[in-house]
Amino acid sequence: MKCLVLLSGGVDSVTALHWACREHEPLAALSFRYGSNHEERELACAEYQARVLGIPHRVIDLSSIALHLSSALLSGAAAIPSGDYEEENMRATVVPFRNGIFLSIAAGVAESCGAQGVVIAAHAGDHALYPDCREPFMQAMEQAMEQGSYAKIQLLRPFIGMSKVQIVKLGAELGVDFSQTYSCYCGGEKHCGRCSTCRERRAAFAAADVEDPTAYEKE
Amino acid sequence: MKCLVLLSGGVDSVTALHWACREHEPLAALSFRYGSNHEERELACAEYQARVLGIPHRVIDLSSIALHLSSALLSGAAAIPSGDYEEENMRATVVPFRNGIFLSIAAGVAESCGAQGVVIAAHAGDHALYPDCREPFMQAMEQAMEQGSYAKIQLLRPFIGMSKVQIVKLGAELGVDFSQTYSCYCGGEKHCGRCSTCRERRAAFAAADVEDPTAYEKE
Repeated sequence: MKCLVLLSGGVDSVTALHWACREHEPLAALSFRYGSNHEERELACAEYQARVLGIPHRVIDLSSIALHLSSALLSGAAAIPSGDYEEENMRATVVPFRNGIFLSIAAGVAESCGAQGVVIAAHAGDHALYPDCREPFMQAMEQAMEQGSYAKIQLLRPFIGMSKVQIVKLGAELGVDFSQTYSCYCGGEKHCGRCSTCRERRAAFAAADVEDPTAYEKE
Repeated sequence: MKCLVLLSGGVDSVTALHWACREHEPLAALSFRYGSNHEERELACAEYQARVLGIPHRVIDLSSIALHLSSALLSGAAAIPSGDYEEENMRATVVPFRNGIFLSIAAGVAESCGAQGVVIAAHAGDHALYPDCREPFMQAMEQAMEQGSYAKIQLLRPFIGMSKVQIVKLGAELGVDFSQTYSCYCGGEKHCGRCSTCRERRAAFAAADVEDPTAYEKE
């Protein structure tokens, strides 16, 4: 299927792009610039991964929208809480309805360029903390995309039954260069090793028994 | 209910803003700039109407997204087909998944500013030609907005059971100054009187028996 792939530049979406190259026909990888603390490093990884695979990379600037959204993710690294996702204070990192905004734009672009599907790397471990990562949202959005387009755009969620550990294993099989992925919320040159995404990233490599090429500030 | 109102500056959305001021508590009116031929005149009307009602008006620039969308509406007036909506060539005026993109952004802004609802002036006469105006899309999007937000954002569609004729009647009751609304796809100083929206506009005033203050090029 001709498709677009949402590509943040993190472990999950980079693995999804490699998977899509094996299973489908990606017309482009789609990234968004919306002022998050870590986006420059993420986007550099996204750009690298798309180039390696020979997939056109489109970066869409959402900074004019982000002006109207409230989130610690858009307010500088000092606002990022440390600790695990489970903690209430992680709620500050929510960007309201982010996946809805990303998927709606992707549906419009897909319809415009002749793609029939949009791939998102949502997975079983995605955090109930974020309402727009939950299954009821994804199912409704899937319907909205299909019903709201001539092409009946499909929302493909290949990892929905997988844990992050399984995604790391799959990525290793697909030959993903994980050293060129980035996910730290703090946006430093090295991954901080302390924020929730860093903890999760490190734990997933360990549990998958895949070598972690990440340079962490805090060992 | 605290709400946001999608405001294009046309007859329907201007009437919806007046309705919302009577029935709810609008925190802001939301307009989008995305490069359509007629948006400057529409936005001037939107700005006027919000100012008269004392509602803050937010204009969100989507030109960076529009670069990636294909539509005659974004390609200059010469590309706009004449004639009724029914005709196949009107399909050229579709902006892919536009309502999905507008509503997703509105949901994110609503969650950010403490609104519990988003008002859209979708009505019974909206054209089956546009998939993202149809009821199955609207119902799915309503679910996605509710499920994807902490505030369980509601999608309010007060006009969904009404015709455009009934909306014009309601607007007249609410004291809407229709001379400060704009909807011609061609974007001229006067309404062209020939394009599909002009024909529909003129017919609605006539059928509603409400004086039409619009200056049309073609009488």
